[in-house]
This record gives sequence, structure tokens and C-alpha cells, in this order.
Amino acid sequence: MHRCNKCDIEFRKKKTLEQHIQYIHKSVSPSIKKILILGGGFAGINILQDILKEFQNNVNVEISLVNQDNFFLFTPMLPEVASGMIHPSDISVPIRTFCKRAKFYQAVVSTIDLEQRLVTITRTFDGKVHALEYDYLIFALGSKTNFFGNKNLEKHSFTIKTIEDAIGIRNHAINMLENAAQTGDPDLQQKLMTFTVVGGGFAGVETIGAINHFVRDAAASTYPNINKEKINMILISSEKRILPEINKKLALSAMRYLKKVSVKIITATKAIDADEDYVLLDNGEKIPCTTLIWAGGVSVDPVISEIKCEHDSSGKIKVDKYLKVACFTNVFALGDCASIIDKTTGKPYPPTAQHAMHQSKVVSNNLKVAINGKGSLVSFSYSSKGWMASIGKRTALVSIFGKNVEGILAWFIWRTYYLIQMPTFEKRVKVATDWLVDLFFKRDLTCVGKIKKKTLSKIDVKDEMPTLKELLFPDL
Amino acid sequence: MHRCNKCDIEFRKKKTLEQHIQYIHKSVSPSIKKILILGGGFAGINILQDILKEFQNNVNVEISLVNQDNFFLFTPMLPEVASGMIHPSDISVPIRTFCKRAKFYQAVVSTIDLEQRLVTITRTFDGKVHALEYDYLIFALGSKTNFFGNKNLEKHSFTIKTIEDAIGIRNHAINMLENAAQTGDPDLQQKLMTFTVVGGGFAGVETIGAINHFVRDAAASTYPNINKEKINMILISSEKRILPEINKKLALSAMRYLKKVSVKIITATKAIDADEDYVLLDNGEKIPCTTLIWAGGVSVDPVISEIKCEHDSSGKIKVDKYLKVACFTNVFALGDCASIIDKTTGKPYPPTAQHAMHQSKVVSNNLKVAINGKGSLVSFSYSSKGWMASIGKRTALVSIFGKNVEGILAWFIWRTYYLIQMPTFEKRVKVATDWLVDLFFKRDLTCVGKIKKKTLSKIDVKDEMPTLKELLFPDL
Repeated sequence: MHRCNKCDIEFRKKKTLEQHIQYIHKSVSPSIKKILILGGGFAGINILQDILKEFQNNVNVEISLVNQDNFFLFTPMLPEVASGMIHPSDISVPIRTFCKRAKFYQAVVSTIDLEQRLVTITRTFDGKVHALEYDYLIFALGSKTNFFGNKNLEKHSFTIKTIEDAIGIRNHAINMLENAAQTGDPDLQQKLMTFTVVGGGFAGVETIGAINHFVRDAAASTYPNINKEKINMILISSEKRILPEINKKLALSAMRYLKKVSVKIITATKAIDADEDYVLLDNGEKIPCTTLIWAGGVSVDPVISEIKCEHDSSGKIKVDKYLKVACFTNVFALGDCASIIDKTTGKPYPPTAQHAMHQSKVVSNNLKVAINGKGSLVSFSYSSKGWMASIGKRTALVSIFGKNVEGILAWFIWRTYYLIQMPTFEKRVKVATDWLVDLFFKRDLTCVGKIKKKTLSKIDVKDEMPTLKELLFPDL
Repeated sequence: MHRCNKCDIEFRKKKTLEQHIQYIHKSVSPSIKKILILGGGFAGINILQDILKEFQNNVNVEISLVNQDNFFLFTPMLPEVASGMIHPSDISVPIRTFCKRAKFYQAVVSTIDLEQRLVTITRTFDGKVHALEYDYLIFALGSKTNFFGNKNLEKHSFTIKTIEDAIGIRNHAINMLENAAQTGDPDLQQKLMTFTVVGGGFAGVETIGAINHFVRDAAASTYPNINKEKINMILISSEKRILPEINKKLALSAMRYLKKVSVKIITATKAIDADEDYVLLDNGEKIPCTTLIWAGGVSVDPVISEIKCEHDSSGKIKVDKYLKVACFTNVFALGDCASIIDKTTGKPYPPTAQHAMHQSKVVSNNLKVAINGKGSLVSFSYSSKGWMASIGKRTALVSIFGKNVEGILAWFIWRTYYLIQMPTFEKRVKVATDWLVDLFFKRDLTCVGKIKKKTLSKIDVKDEMPTLKELLFPDL
């Protein structure tokens, strides 16, 4: 590989590097096209890989990606990390692995101005704000957990969207086991051993399934003086059923399975308040519990909902069938932060990784068409081939091509499918190894304490916030 | 197994459980002997396993163990965790795994009164103080890092004694790589890429070796715009040489190897001050660096040094050749917190895991003799069969039975020896798997952020601090 150290990007051919230096650093070429991808989830990473392939040797195209973490996270396996089956690092892939000739900024997106084609970002590194110009912008910023403004629920809940969330849930569950094993008070033991998950969608169901399996196995194997009858697993759904995304028959089957493994399901009920040792429901019931996990809704970040463009009622960016933002033909949005209407149902497509990946193909194509000035735009239309959920020990639900599969076969399909979906061979091997080891041994129950973090407050990078001109033409 | 839920311990035979209930909960037997082990490191866990074997079916012996963490830590592999080769959970074993019919308290030892045979502990769970009586006491509390009272060094250093230390060092090193990759300032890049380890003993040498390998490999594979010449690895030893514990020839060989892989070694020099971005040496040199790891000395905890018994100048407990504390024939001390004179040299034995494990055999035997009233006391005398240190990529130094071995063969011996030493088959498999995976793939470079921790401040256990009598005879 041939590297431009000034720009922190690399090219496959030496000639391309020379052209790059000629065009970018020696003179100003008006034909340079800057592509800026905001977000490094399923949508962002898939687009990055597609357009890198297309423009690998085209020096007239500059590609940048901004993401808050330095890694891509394979979110479907978060419940398996939360329950200690998989090592956290095995489902996270450093974004630099994908970047090649693209530039990576580990930063938070601060402001977006579509009129002026300008994005400002705050670097994680030193907290400094930088400005990025673009010719083509791609929104792939995903969603964040929505507590509907309830501060108490937010304060006392764990969420299940990030790798830190999953590690936090695992640490907390082990702490509660240790605590419950040391108290002789049966009421307190029950409180410590009650795990409440709010949210009847995929995330909530998979999380309660994984935690239930983990806690009951750990109590049986290592904490014999925890009274098994004091363990309570509760799933709260605001709808009349769980898994509203899927067909009723299989959802009922999921409820039956969860009840069989002693998960209590409360439907048509909302959590309205919480403290560190209880959660209050809107039917007046107060559940004493020291673990509350919130998978009760998602919303978009204000940086998305405040952009001057068309939004739906939840703040998502409205796009046309080519996934372009209205009035801005150079701006695309996809994934959880975009509102894309399914023509066949009239409703928006659901915010799943599966949809984001299919949308990324459309955006990549339409972006290539726009830049190359040839080919034809593709419109997005997709009907899900199926879905799957892992709901307990060697048990999953799969619906594929209209067929329902349950139990250990579904669990096998679930594992195979997601293993194939993982973005690198390395992580596939590591996750498969974790699974293999888990077949033979008990889950690890060590409680890790506080980890020292050194912050560099006195470090001065000595680069004043550059003007746009300095930023764009560093050699002038 | 047959379990007494009141005491949280279990027995192999039903008859023993019945006897236990008869003696402990139904009446007061004056013949009950209480053994209390303080510390769950190599010394504590080995003694626990030995005496559990001996007294498994003897209901007249009660065994308890107190440790701050809920796990035993296999410390020789900490540098491998700090450099991301091994998953943290793979070198930590939950103490409950070893406990069987012994009772485990996750707690900090607060006070020790040898005259009254009383130990008070503060439970990690709820911060409450409990009192434990004993007939036989075993000190195996290890050592803590010694900064010789220098607050600045303590504040700005990472230590390398706990699992949290190792995780913290790894996170910090990755952060420094990310930061260095994002700055164009060569001086700052050098500062961020300078890693200083203070301490020329085993811990320091193994740590600089592991970090050097990790950072240089990561920079080469994933951060191509980090200038390799800006990476500095510095080892500071207060002695004229490194590895003072071992023979001079092999120590020189270690120095040669470290120099070859670009580690700078500064001998006969002490670190005297530090801030977040430099360390100051007593020769006046100021090293700009954002990573300082302190392996510069150990001392004993005040809870040990303040006990009313004989201590050496560093506060360690003096013991006789039977490892008994003078004037207290029912109290033993071993491992890093004990000062045991080697008759052949007149100096104390070094504080290594190897010695602690051999001492534990002597203590177990002498404890059995004391309790059973038969057999004869054994005195401790041990000359190390050798030692080994891993100092870099597939390179170690081994000295065994007077023979010196270096390089990849030594590295292979190092791995085999420590794999056999690991206390459970499960962890052996997991560490071997980590090693295997590491042969084929790059180290993981994902940066995990802040993890939510929920503290239960409002939980009230409702057990008032019990009186000693209540504690000992709960059924009266």
C-alpha cells in the first residue's frame, strides 16, 4: 500500500498516490468530489466498503467517515455479551480495518448545515471542533434510546445499545448474584434477584432470554444458597403482545417458551417511574427489583432532528425512494435515522440491521451514479425475507420465506446466519470459539472493579482551530 | 453435594451435613475448630484446597476465607492481559469455585486482634462490618504497590497488580495510539508514543516487553501514519542492572534482547516526580511521556504492618521456620506479607508465587498437625529450582536447574509451565485458545468507554451488626 501521511489514507497503486499528491497537495482541482459518511454502524460501514471498491483508484474522490467510537459494533450479539457468552472485543471491529484510503475521524457530529454543505465535528481525542466540507453527505447515524423524557427511568436503567451497556449489565448481574448470596433476608434476596426488562421488541425479548439463562445457570452452579424461587425475570411490553414486528403465531410461541422458562410477561403496560430498587407500572403495580433494563423505545439524536430538512413526527429524516433527502440531491439518509415509506404498506420500513444493509446497496449505487454521471438511479424496495430472535438456552425463533422454525434448529440457523453476517473472518473465528468454549464450561463470574482512566487535560495540540481555507488547502 | 443453606457451605456426605447441623445449629460443641484464611491469592487458595481435602468430612472444623475480590487472579499473566493477548476473565477464577464446604466472605480486612482472636471485616456488598472469631488464623494477604509516599507518582502512574490495572493499561495504550494517529505535531506524537515503565524486576521487565510488542505491532498494522521513530519504550531500574533476582549472565542477555527490540534501559536511576505528560528522574532528566507504569516496589498493607506482633523493617510479619508468628502458635503467615529468613543466605525469601505455593504446603501440614494433634511439624526450606520471564514476541528467558535457556524455546517452556500452573482445567483451555487465536490474528484495538455502574445506596440489609454471640450461635 502507498500512503499519504499528511491525509492519513492509503492507495493500492503508487500512481494513484502520486496523482493524489499532485491534485490535493500541489494544486487545487475543482473536480475533487468529497464524500462524507456520518456514522459507522451497519449502514455506514457497508456504504464505505462499497464505494471504496468503486473509487479505490480514483484520486478525484475523497472519502471520510465520522464515528463516535473507534469500532463498528455487531449489535445483534449484544445480549450474548450482556450474558457473558461472548467476549466484548469479539463483536467489535476497529473502523480503521475498513478505511484503507478513506479518512477516519473519531468524533461526535456537532452541527450539520445542508445549505452551506458544512459539518462540524468534535474530536474525541482533544475535544476540538473541526469543520468538514462535503459534496455528498450520507446520514447513517442510527438511533438512541428513548426514555420519553422520564429522568428517573433513565437514571436507574441500563440500556442495551452499546458495548459499554452490555458489559455494564453483565457486571451488575454478577454483583447482584454475589450480594444475594450474602444476605439471609429473603425479601432482599428476591429484590436483588428480580430482573425487569422493559420493551417487548426484539431487543427486550432477546435480552430477557439471555439474562434469564445466565442468572439461573450461575445460581444453580455457583451460588447454591440463593433460593431459586426468589429469582424473578419480568418482561414488560406496552403492546398487547410481544414481538409486534412478527406474525402472531410465532409471537405466541415465544411467549409460551418464555413462560416455560419462568419469565413473567406483563403486556399492555408501561413503566412510568423507577428508583434504584423498584419500577412502577402504569397499572399501579410496584415491582421491587434492583435491575432494570430499558429497551422501551428509540429516537433520533437532536443533531438529526434539528437539521433544516423534512422530518417525520419522530424526528427521522424523510427521504424519497432513491433515499435522497428532499431538496438536497447530494444528501442521502438511511438506516435508523431515516424515514423511508414502504409503498406496499404505506408505513415506514422498520429500523433493523437487515434493512440498513439493503438500503446501503441502494445509496452506494445512487452515489456512484451521481459522481460518475452514468448509470441509472435505483429505488429502494424490500420485503423482509424473514427475521429471527434468540430467546434462551439453545432456543430461537426463526421465520424465513413464510416458514416458522422453533427450538434448537432455529437456534442453529440463528447462529449460522449471524456468523456469516459478521464483517471479518477474524471475528467469525473468535465468536465461534466463544460459542465452542461455552458448550463445555460455565460462564465466567468474575467481578471486575473500577478501572483507572488517565485523561490528558494539559496536552495542547497546538493546532488552532483551522479556518476552512487552511483545512482545505493546507499547502497554500 | 449436601448443603447447609444457613452457612452457605456444602458437604460431600449426607452424614457430615447431619453432624454439622447437630453440632453447629442444635447445640454448642466446644471442640469446633475455626480456621480463618485471610487472602485469596496463590498462598490462600493453595492452603484452602489442601485443608479442604483433609477436613472434608470433619464437621468439627470450620473453614472461612476472606478476599477483597470475588476471584483468584493468576498474576504471572497480567502483562499478557495488559497487552491484549489474553482476555481478562481467562486468568481470573471465582473463589467460590474452590470453596466447597468453606465459607467465602467478599470483604476487606479491617482490624486484626491476635490477643482476642478476633478479625473484623467490611463486606464489599453493603459496607457493613462483621466480626469473625478464629482458632487458627492464616495471613496470606499479599502486598500492595509502594510509591514511597510520592503522591504525584501515584496519581499519574498505572500499576500492574490487579486485573483492573491490566485492563486500564490496555485501554490507555489504545487511546494513546488513536490520539497519536490524529495529531500532525511530531513532538506531541512522540510524547503520546512514549511508554515508561519504572522497575527493573520481573514485573517491570515483563510489562515493558509485552507493551513494546503490542504497541509496535498495532502501529505497524493499523496506524500507518504514526511515525515508527516516534515510538519510545523506556525501562527505568534503580539498580545497576535489571532482574537483580537472577544470575548476571542471563540478565545481560535480557538487556541485549530488549535493546535489540528498541527498548531503552536506564539503570541506577530513580523516578522522583511525574505529571500527566512527563516523568522526572533523579539524574535531572525529564522524559516527556503520557504513559507511566509503576512496578517500582511493593509494601504490605497497614492492616498487616500495624498488627501487634514482630515485623521486619518493611512491615512484613516475622515468622519462625514453621511459618508460625512468634508468641502465637495458632497464627501462620506466608507469601508476600510474611518475612521468612532463608537459613542458607541469611536473607528473606523473595516474594514470588513459586515460594508462596511451597510455603502453603508447609502451613497446611503444620495446621493439620496442630488440629489433629498428631504428625510432626515441617519447617520451610526451599531453594528455587529456577525462574522465567517472558520479555517479548515469542521470546523468554528461563533458568532451570542451573541451565540458561533463551528465545523461542524458553518462550515455549514459559507457556507450558504457566499453563500447567493454572488452577483449573477450564482456564487452561481458555488461555490456550487465546494464545492460538493470537497466532493467527492481530490484537484487538477497540476502545471501550465508560461503563455504567449502579450502586445500591438505599438498600438496607436489616441485619443490625450482630453481636459475637448472635454470630456464633444463630439458633440460640
